[in-house]
Amino acid sequence: MREKIKVAVFGTGHMGSGIIKLLLQKQGIDICGVYSKRKERAGQDVGELVGLERKIGVTVTADYVSLLRTTKPDIVIQSTSSTMKDAYTEMESIVKSGANVISIAEEAAYPWYGSADLARQLDRLAAEHKVTILGTGINPGFVLDLLIIVLTGVCYRVDKIVASRINDLSPYGHSVLTTQGVNLKPEDFEKGVRDGSVVGHFGFPESMSMIAAALGWKLDKIEQFREPIVSSVRRESAIGTIQPGYTAGCRHTGIGYMNGKKVIELIHPQQVHPELEKIGTGDYIEIHGDPTIKFSGVPEIPGGVGTIALAVNMIPKVLDAEPGFKSMADLPVPSALMADVRELLKKKG
Amino acid sequence: MREKIKVAVFGTGHMGSGIIKLLLQKQGIDICGVYSKRKERAGQDVGELVGLERKIGVTVTADYVSLLRTTKPDIVIQSTSSTMKDAYTEMESIVKSGANVISIAEEAAYPWYGSADLARQLDRLAAEHKVTILGTGINPGFVLDLLIIVLTGVCYRVDKIVASRINDLSPYGHSVLTTQGVNLKPEDFEKGVRDGSVVGHFGFPESMSMIAAALGWKLDKIEQFREPIVSSVRRESAIGTIQPGYTAGCRHTGIGYMNGKKVIELIHPQQVHPELEKIGTGDYIEIHGDPTIKFSGVPEIPGGVGTIALAVNMIPKVLDAEPGFKSMADLPVPSALMADVRELLKKKG
Repeated sequence: MREKIKVAVFGTGHMGSGIIKLLLQKQGIDICGVYSKRKERAGQDVGELVGLERKIGVTVTADYVSLLRTTKPDIVIQSTSSTMKDAYTEMESIVKSGANVISIAEEAAYPWYGSADLARQLDRLAAEHKVTILGTGINPGFVLDLLIIVLTGVCYRVDKIVASRINDLSPYGHSVLTTQGVNLKPEDFEKGVRDGSVVGHFGFPESMSMIAAALGWKLDKIEQFREPIVSSVRRESAIGTIQPGYTAGCRHTGIGYMNGKKVIELIHPQQVHPELEKIGTGDYIEIHGDPTIKFSGVPEIPGGVGTIALAVNMIPKVLDAEPGFKSMADLPVPSALMADVRELLKKKG
Repeated sequence: MREKIKVAVFGTGHMGSGIIKLLLQKQGIDICGVYSKRKERAGQDVGELVGLERKIGVTVTADYVSLLRTTKPDIVIQSTSSTMKDAYTEMESIVKSGANVISIAEEAAYPWYGSADLARQLDRLAAEHKVTILGTGINPGFVLDLLIIVLTGVCYRVDKIVASRINDLSPYGHSVLTTQGVNLKPEDFEKGVRDGSVVGHFGFPESMSMIAAALGWKLDKIEQFREPIVSSVRRESAIGTIQPGYTAGCRHTGIGYMNGKKVIELIHPQQVHPELEKIGTGDYIEIHGDPTIKFSGVPEIPGGVGTIALAVNMIPKVLDAEPGFKSMADLPVPSALMADVRELLKKKG
């Protein structure tokens, strides 16, 4: 059998640490390096960093250029950024080193929407270096785009897509809750939407563009709405107790129009402890057409877990893929990695 | 833009006719020929054959060798058979003519299970002629395999898969109802299972093998059970009125074992008019692991429609694919074809 697949992880936050822990459970993978922007983490053993009781003999570095040069990874999982602008420089270095990239940057799930020039540059560079770049994650990348696309495959005709993901923000910490506008007076939430501090979900235009591209639809407009979810009960959160009348989260809606008609409607109400107001979490997909298809998952697929799993599970698909910048809709379907990754590769050697 | 994609259809039964009608609604496709085994159909205009009020200027032929030679299709959709043994000779001719194949033969969805030698031969032949062969269909090919595989993509670990498809056989005619053992005394149903006249669902070993291959599981045993669904009420069917005490259908179960443990359980109770005993139809998928994922579609994705849609929707994916014999898990995800098929091709020209 070929040598183990050398995987480097860029990023040691919640997602990066989760990816490292999952990689350590998989066979045929050798974590060859870990990069952290946070200089104070440099030199720390990766096993200890992610909370294991053992060292794994790989230390965190704050210098990814040297990591790439000395360890020559086959693939890098990037969990350092959300935008293509932030992800670009690392991606460029990784590709030039001859490694493939799996990025969980939200914009990388469909970079042709917001960063078409960067996407084209990286696509050319990846082709030149014979490597593949993939953007993935639970959302964008799976629930509100890939899964919808898959389900349209059984339709003669699709007229309209309506999908919602109702989830619970209570596992999340300060930074996520702040960008979701949690624990604000409704008027401060509205102000936050206007000044950009309340962001809501990141990735609707990417999801809608991925769906449209897969079906061959040309969207003429994408709109987004962020509305406060005002609590009528007390809810506990990582940024304090939410009193009735304050926000528990953000109801974010994305609408895609074609020829002036709504053809994609994605609805993502995110809040802490929805169960306190008897709101069940879940993923709901409706494809209106011939036939109309309705699928739902209850409770919702957990977001952090799903993103970590996809980043790791896509390794053999990316290693087997044609060179270039790809989306989840361009590659074979994801699947859980339940054997030595080398056994799942079609390209041998 | 390149010329229209030339598609030939082999088979003019319920599925073949449905495929032709759907192809006629799609842009960028030219139906270049239609083959029927039934000699009495030769010479008939295809438009009239499928019940349109107009001729389309293509006549049915009973000679597919000459069809391939004179019309040079880019792709042939094969709906003439269920087994690889029956599908093989046509597939070989199609591939040698330089055309791609989309087959709805159930065994072609994963031919490496039951016909590994034929699959390997065709894979080599397809590689030699630089064309792709794909087996697809609602089941095997989508609900109880591809959709399950996709959903495992968000899992750290999968322990066991349990999925069921509860559907209504009442749209089907004599031949389907007979192979499902409808309208029999329970003891005659059991006799039919023993003598092979009651078949139930066709494709469980294929679905289970496709799932196992995607995850890297090695199944050591596949079992199948066919039990009568005995009606307690009167139900009308295409093979007569079913009296209480007679069978309304077949509850077919497939179980895949790994290391002696059940790891895949597929359950497919098919019967006419399940609503008469308050049984709702639907597709239900449970992936037990970390995390456990539960998805369901209610009512079930219609079987005939789904198979026809997949056969047509997969055209651009097959034209873009690498040469060889592929399963649905090897190709990019299916998606509804809502634009000129040529716009959806990545390979141009």
